[in-house]
Amino acid sequence: MARAYALTTNPFDDDKLREECAVFGIHGTEDAAAHAALGLHALQHRGQEASGIVTYDGAEFRAHRALGQVGDVFGEQQVMDRLKGSAAIGHNRYSTTGDPMVRNTQPLFADFEFGGFAVAHNGNLTNAVQLRRELVHGGSIFQSTTDTEVIVHLLAQAKGGVTDRLTEALRRVEGAYSLVCLTRKKLIGVRDPLGVRPLVLGKLGDAHILASETCALDIIGAEKVRDVKAGEMIVIDDNGITSTFPFPPMKTRFCVFEYVYFSRPDSIVEGHSVYAARTAIGRELAAEHPIEADVIVPIPDSGVPSAIGYAEASGIPFQYGIIRNHYVGRTFIEPTDEIRNLGVKLKHNANREVIEGKRIVLIDDSIVRGTTSRKIVEMMRHAGATEVHMCIASPPTTHSCFYGVDTPERDKLLAARNTLEEMRALIGCDSLAFISMDGLYRAVGLPGRDPDSPQYCDACFSGDYPIRLTDQEQQGGKTSQLSLLREQAR
Amino acid sequence: MARAYALTTNPFDDDKLREECAVFGIHGTEDAAAHAALGLHALQHRGQEASGIVTYDGAEFRAHRALGQVGDVFGEQQVMDRLKGSAAIGHNRYSTTGDPMVRNTQPLFADFEFGGFAVAHNGNLTNAVQLRRELVHGGSIFQSTTDTEVIVHLLAQAKGGVTDRLTEALRRVEGAYSLVCLTRKKLIGVRDPLGVRPLVLGKLGDAHILASETCALDIIGAEKVRDVKAGEMIVIDDNGITSTFPFPPMKTRFCVFEYVYFSRPDSIVEGHSVYAARTAIGRELAAEHPIEADVIVPIPDSGVPSAIGYAEASGIPFQYGIIRNHYVGRTFIEPTDEIRNLGVKLKHNANREVIEGKRIVLIDDSIVRGTTSRKIVEMMRHAGATEVHMCIASPPTTHSCFYGVDTPERDKLLAARNTLEEMRALIGCDSLAFISMDGLYRAVGLPGRDPDSPQYCDACFSGDYPIRLTDQEQQGGKTSQLSLLREQAR
Amino acid sequence: MARAYALTTNPFDDDKLREECAVFGIHGTEDAAAHAALGLHALQHRGQEASGIVTYDGAEFRAHRALGQVGDVFGEQQVMDRLKGSAAIGHNRYSTTGDPMVRNTQPLFADFEFGGFAVAHNGNLTNAVQLRRELVHGGSIFQSTTDTEVIVHLLAQAKGGVTDRLTEALRRVEGAYSLVCLTRKKLIGVRDPLGVRPLVLGKLGDAHILASETCALDIIGAEKVRDVKAGEMIVIDDNGITSTFPFPPMKTRFCVFEYVYFSRPDSIVEGHSVYAARTAIGRELAAEHPIEADVIVPIPDSGVPSAIGYAEASGIPFQYGIIRNHYVGRTFIEPTDEIRNLGVKLKHNANREVIEGKRIVLIDDSIVRGTTSRKIVEMMRHAGATEVHMCIASPPTTHSCFYGVDTPERDKLLAARNTLEEMRALIGCDSLAFISMDGLYRAVGLPGRDPDSPQYCDACFSGDYPIRLTDQEQQGGKTSQLSLLREQAR
Amino acid sequence: MARAYALTTNPFDDDKLREECAVFGIHGTEDAAAHAALGLHALQHRGQEASGIVTYDGAEFRAHRALGQVGDVFGEQQVMDRLKGSAAIGHNRYSTTGDPMVRNTQPLFADFEFGGFAVAHNGNLTNAVQLRRELVHGGSIFQSTTDTEVIVHLLAQAKGGVTDRLTEALRRVEGAYSLVCLTRKKLIGVRDPLGVRPLVLGKLGDAHILASETCALDIIGAEKVRDVKAGEMIVIDDNGITSTFPFPPMKTRFCVFEYVYFSRPDSIVEGHSVYAARTAIGRELAAEHPIEADVIVPIPDSGVPSAIGYAEASGIPFQYGIIRNHYVGRTFIEPTDEIRNLGVKLKHNANREVIEGKRIVLIDDSIVRGTTSRKIVEMMRHAGATEVHMCIASPPTTHSCFYGVDTPERDKLLAARNTLEEMRALIGCDSLAFISMDGLYRAVGLPGRDPDSPQYCDACFSGDYPIRLTDQEQQGGKTSQLSLLREQAR
Repeated sequence: MARAYALTTNPFDDDKLREECAVFGIHGTEDAAAHAALGLHALQHRGQEASGIVTYDGAEFRAHRALGQVGDVFGEQQVMDRLKGSAAIGHNRYSTTGDPMVRNTQPLFADFEFGGFAVAHNGNLTNAVQLRRELVHGGSIFQSTTDTEVIVHLLAQAKGGVTDRLTEALRRVEGAYSLVCLTRKKLIGVRDPLGVRPLVLGKLGDAHILASETCALDIIGAEKVRDVKAGEMIVIDDNGITSTFPFPPMKTRFCVFEYVYFSRPDSIVEGHSVYAARTAIGRELAAEHPIEADVIVPIPDSGVPSAIGYAEASGIPFQYGIIRNHYVGRTFIEPTDEIRNLGVKLKHNANREVIEGKRIVLIDDSIVRGTTSRKIVEMMRHAGATEVHMCIASPPTTHSCFYGVDTPERDKLLAARNTLEEMRALIGCDSLAFISMDGLYRAVGLPGRDPDSPQYCDACFSGDYPIRLTDQEQQGGKTSQLSLLREQAR
Repeated sequence: MARAYALTTNPFDDDKLREECAVFGIHGTEDAAAHAALGLHALQHRGQEASGIVTYDGAEFRAHRALGQVGDVFGEQQVMDRLKGSAAIGHNRYSTTGDPMVRNTQPLFADFEFGGFAVAHNGNLTNAVQLRRELVHGGSIFQSTTDTEVIVHLLAQAKGGVTDRLTEALRRVEGAYSLVCLTRKKLIGVRDPLGVRPLVLGKLGDAHILASETCALDIIGAEKVRDVKAGEMIVIDDNGITSTFPFPPMKTRFCVFEYVYFSRPDSIVEGHSVYAARTAIGRELAAEHPIEADVIVPIPDSGVPSAIGYAEASGIPFQYGIIRNHYVGRTFIEPTDEIRNLGVKLKHNANREVIEGKRIVLIDDSIVRGTTSRKIVEMMRHAGATEVHMCIASPPTTHSCFYGVDTPERDKLLAARNTLEEMRALIGCDSLAFISMDGLYRAVGLPGRDPDSPQYCDACFSGDYPIRLTDQEQQGGKTSQLSLLREQAR
Repeated sequence: MARAYALTTNPFDDDKLREECAVFGIHGTEDAAAHAALGLHALQHRGQEASGIVTYDGAEFRAHRALGQVGDVFGEQQVMDRLKGSAAIGHNRYSTTGDPMVRNTQPLFADFEFGGFAVAHNGNLTNAVQLRRELVHGGSIFQSTTDTEVIVHLLAQAKGGVTDRLTEALRRVEGAYSLVCLTRKKLIGVRDPLGVRPLVLGKLGDAHILASETCALDIIGAEKVRDVKAGEMIVIDDNGITSTFPFPPMKTRFCVFEYVYFSRPDSIVEGHSVYAARTAIGRELAAEHPIEADVIVPIPDSGVPSAIGYAEASGIPFQYGIIRNHYVGRTFIEPTDEIRNLGVKLKHNANREVIEGKRIVLIDDSIVRGTTSRKIVEMMRHAGATEVHMCIASPPTTHSCFYGVDTPERDKLLAARNTLEEMRALIGCDSLAFISMDGLYRAVGLPGRDPDSPQYCDACFSGDYPIRLTDQEQQGGKTSQLSLLREQAR
Repeated sequence: MARAYALTTNPFDDDKLREECAVFGIHGTEDAAAHAALGLHALQHRGQEASGIVTYDGAEFRAHRALGQVGDVFGEQQVMDRLKGSAAIGHNRYSTTGDPMVRNTQPLFADFEFGGFAVAHNGNLTNAVQLRRELVHGGSIFQSTTDTEVIVHLLAQAKGGVTDRLTEALRRVEGAYSLVCLTRKKLIGVRDPLGVRPLVLGKLGDAHILASETCALDIIGAEKVRDVKAGEMIVIDDNGITSTFPFPPMKTRFCVFEYVYFSRPDSIVEGHSVYAARTAIGRELAAEHPIEADVIVPIPDSGVPSAIGYAEASGIPFQYGIIRNHYVGRTFIEPTDEIRNLGVKLKHNANREVIEGKRIVLIDDSIVRGTTSRKIVEMMRHAGATEVHMCIASPPTTHSCFYGVDTPERDKLLAARNTLEEMRALIGCDSLAFISMDGLYRAVGLPGRDPDSPQYCDACFSGDYPIRLTDQEQQGGKTSQLSLLREQAR
């Protein structure tokens, strides 16, 4: 359905980084698919374009995958009735611009000699293009343009049982991955050696669960057991849990941006409350960048906790100066220039009562392209703000992510091309401030960033990439992973 | 698509009152339909089940109505391309349980001797059943079970031009109505003599707009001119605006619940900021019911402004102790009892970081059935709250509304059957408090409620119905308007 | 779904007259709707664009109507499950170019004081426009552009029980109609005083059936009782059948074209086998127009029986020289001129084996515009025919029908504008012959046409219209009934 | 959409053998996809369940495949607009009971080192299960349960350019195949060494065409060049046509059933007119089995040409004693036993005028299960036939086909289990006769069948299988190819 002049779904989110995926697995309960659907619903913020669930019912694998949100994809009784079985894995995917093919929707499934195998992947491989080339040369036939399919073909080439094959396959891949896999007997979870993307283990009665975040445990009343560790492979079957560490040990580098934006505020990731981290960032911001103002205004919803923290530390009142409209359908048509400029208003409106005649501090989580920041500032001035200051709950985003977050190419990032003052001028605010890297690290409970051996992956702020970018290096680093894969598939 | 065990769309909203409708009209601009779709999108909170737009393109009326949210109903280019014309009216409708027929979707349209006539209605007529019976006896054939169709048939029976007919028709109806109507030449807005439901007049360049709330003006960059007055009929055509008052003058009784819950916080209704009213209610609540506690927790999203006000007045910190998941698809399947009890969790999750070990004050806008209040309190205790207090930003809801709000029958209202202490015990909180009627009136800028001649319609709190309930009286008051109409249509 | 350059569904049928409708009613059996669906399926040739069934289940009327063929509209179990009841009426409709609105799909249904009333109509009213104007003036609101709705509104205005009202209403209408109606208790069938359109009464055990043709009785194993008579109203309820003749008696004028083309060959209409009539026409043709040729080739499927008759009488072999492809989906795209000219080939292909080197006689039922006749002749020559003769099983179609058959306006009819020789030249055949009017009458068992008082309606061949054309007279006769109604609804 | 008690689409065809597929390819014309859609439409009788087209537009391969008939699958402009390119291949598939998956819909497509490769297949491989097992062991991942995918994986494993790879792959497969393949530069056609399934080469201006039958050439105005020869590989590119014979030469064994039933009567296959063959069969039948009767009645549509031949030879009149209803939607619901027995009537009705009081000879092409033959005979007696004789235009069908025709398992074939007299008694006719094998061979122009070296594949009549049935032998011959493949994919 081509639409010549449709506005994209989430006009505002065009100026946000986008997590690529959520994963969920459960073993040992009736109605595994219903639990998976609820878990994926709780993880909807990690991927809204497509969802899929694969179950094993004791005789056959059953799958349903479709474009759409979880509640729509799994909202029909007949769909759920077909997804029988006591074990299931599921996946949410974010839209990757221009390639919203159903055949790329996970979990992927393949028939092996040992039987069926399904896999769902959060993260991104950095040598997928090179591996794909080798596999195609050897006679493998690819069906999708996902990097995940490389793992499936490596498994097909490997020997032995599923865990041996999976180990052999993963030893050849580079990149970030939290995987959940399903076979006839086993639910398997694996995290890459640096533990870049999250994965947590939970329990509900006798059932075991693997999920991207703890909020997916909360919704089904399950309790958190622990985080899956970096480099760990967890195998769950009727005999219980087995844990192995099949890769050489490495210093972990969890993604710090999960605290800033990706994870839900009610999740506990790697031992820290996301909400606590965000309010702490707000307090750090207030300490680093005190501003004389009348009101603290969050850009909803992601700026809210930091704004509460800033208000608390500064003593300036917190008010909802921007109202967000949560009802946004697929697209909106914009036939005239007059209407075309209304994009940002589909989601946000100034609450003039709070803004008019006031000096305001806007709090946002990050700035990517800066396009909507500019429009929000303009909206504030139009509503009568006398001063508009902007405080950002993360350091300047200067580098692209290659580990599972959909960032624009580097030259589209505002902070990659401009000085702080240039950014302020472009956005049109009276002052602009970002939290420092040390401030961010302090907010998550560390004394600061260790420059010799950073405790987190903060490549998007620092350019310090902890995993080799093999495919990028071979291409001169110009294009995205997806376009490399798509080119190879031509 | 029968679903034996589906959970309804908005499980939480089952415990909210529901506004029946939003209306929007525009005259004098290219792309009237695009403006109408945006306006309806901004008014989505007033009706999420169905939407419709009728335009006149200079030769023909064009219509599109469908079940679904505005962004979905009007998200396809070919739909918008067909809706040509420089004048349009539109309508959003809330789900009226069990009768979600497309033929009830507005705007209604009919052919008259003078040409086509389209009408969209917010409100409810209280003598529609009696009038319908008379009209059917006289040979009228009804197509829907809406009360609005009564107005259309009265118009067909009346004589003269459209405004004469409309006046003649409306003199026979009783109830609450804000109407927008479209003919070949005219856009017409009318408000009932008491002005129960809102209607505002706006301007965008040379175009005139009628809308339920000002937020629908903001989204298209229009400015508010004034509220349409109670009993006023506004006729807009190429010559400009004409205002008449065709009904006997009466003391106005605007719906006070619009301030409590229905209207968007960024709207200005009848001269007052809704956001300001709500934060003022929070401050009044704090003054009337001071509580020793550690944290003020809003039940999102409607409790947020009052919670900010309560926190401000009490000095107790405001925190997001409940996280709302805005992604809720049409339905969710709940095959087992274990899952069936998760309803409330589809929308809300406790933010344990804020709750654990704390004495909390929950702020909500109102209590209808009380079912979800009980579940939220339980969720708070499960998350470790040591005390759970509940403060409600409206007086107890003791009576049904017959003027356009979809309330349960009276015996389903928690406050109609129970004392305050009984309610507290049923909900399971440590204390329960409602704002007083005078407190509510003070929050909207009055010295208090005038018991001899109340300034607002507060029938749902007081049982003081300002408009006669003709149909109810004839039926002994037991059944809803809709079921009366449906019975007659059998 | 606008399609800029789509070829219409049935390219070949553009050159056929099209019957507007089929009706079916049944009373007194379980699963009335299933019987109705089968009956409508057997009557599919009388209307392929839309179908509908209304049942009464003892408490409520239930309806399903949709665009599409019977097998598609009623092929889903959940649809049939809803259509409960022991009485049902149904309707098939032909596409009326450009107005394929669902709201025009029958049976129509309306609520009256006496209860619900459903009606399905085969035929066309000739004073519908005038009556509609009067009714709208009196306050009636029309929902469709069908002439049938006029009957419904006349019923609403009339007084008394349903049969009294129906009689009163039908006394005011002019035109051709075979109606089946359903109320809570009664199944009613009525035929206009001239009996222009067919209607037959059948029996299956204790159940009674009304149907357009006997083939609808055959499919459910029912037996024919008799034809409903011209001007007769048959009322069927639990007490059995009542027959009345509420209109002044008139000489009957059944449509002779039913024998030529509309009815199915296996139907018995007004006492004559359609197949027998068609083979007899073929024999008459051979007698009137003997041709020296090698092979008799029918244009399938409608030309087959006459071709068999011609072959039989002439002794020239009958062969399938044209193969028809019955698989034709909704539309075909024709992007280039080269492909655009293939229209006729979607349905027909020359069977070169039979044609090459032969003198052939093509037999067709009628010529309307002549466009496809020309293409068929060309196809025959391209396949190597040495001579192509054409014999038509009806007299030249010189006049439009206003009694329920969708004919082009008169100036589009080939025979209205051209002499026989001109027609032959335009079509490109070596000779062209039509059966004589007397020959046609002889084929259906009469000595010939009585010019003073014709026994059939043959207005399309003779211009002798037996029922007044009130609306046409008022408009100067230029436009079709439908466009008149549509204009009034503007 | 599970339907508990739906009648299958083509109730009557349950008693017919079903060809599995049609293929079509075109190279060197604008709008290749439009030509392909027309060609597939003309080949619709060879597969009605699903259709697909793949084009190459000079930069990318484009594909559209869906369940449904050609006119529906390719009836939307936006679908055709996407299928750009000057080369295309297409495929129709018959329903293979219970496995109507879209992922099995052809053409298949895969990315190779040399670029994209699409293939469409008519026929069936007899060692696909064994090859699939070997390929999976070697690491190949299958996506479908079609035998055709085996060819694709063999291609991936092979070395060199596409024609070398295709030759290498096809040398390993056993079975019947007519393939059309598309690469960036080439359109390739291949026929198995015995030439079991048809494939014809055509020309339209500078464009070349490959198609299953000549009727697909007729529809686009193309002319036949010649049949592709058994064992021939034809490669078409911008330089023209190259022909090679890469397999060891063998005596050809074209499928004789193509003349009896599969091919369209207007096609010329392997040099013979199908229509001529069928009328000749009718004449042979009349000579072998003369019957004293009043009328020859074809079971439409497949029995018509043989009935014409029989009537011609016997001098007994040919009449349409059975009328076929070509409008059959997807399914019909049959809620009661009474209705359940009407199956055959959905498609056929007795034309009592022709049958009553007559001794009739029914002519049908073949008898498979015999279930509908019995019902037709019963229908004839019910319509008043005094004698019902049945003559079949093929020898008794005693064996299953494994070369691309969907036959029931052997023990479901009436003629495999019963003597002629037992068959007659079961069907209930007065006499039953089949044409002799020699009579059939004579009808297609041979002196008779050479028992030492049959000129055609007639395995379904003789059990003489010209190609080894490897998979069947390994499984003890009990199950169908499809169920073997499905089992392996579990």
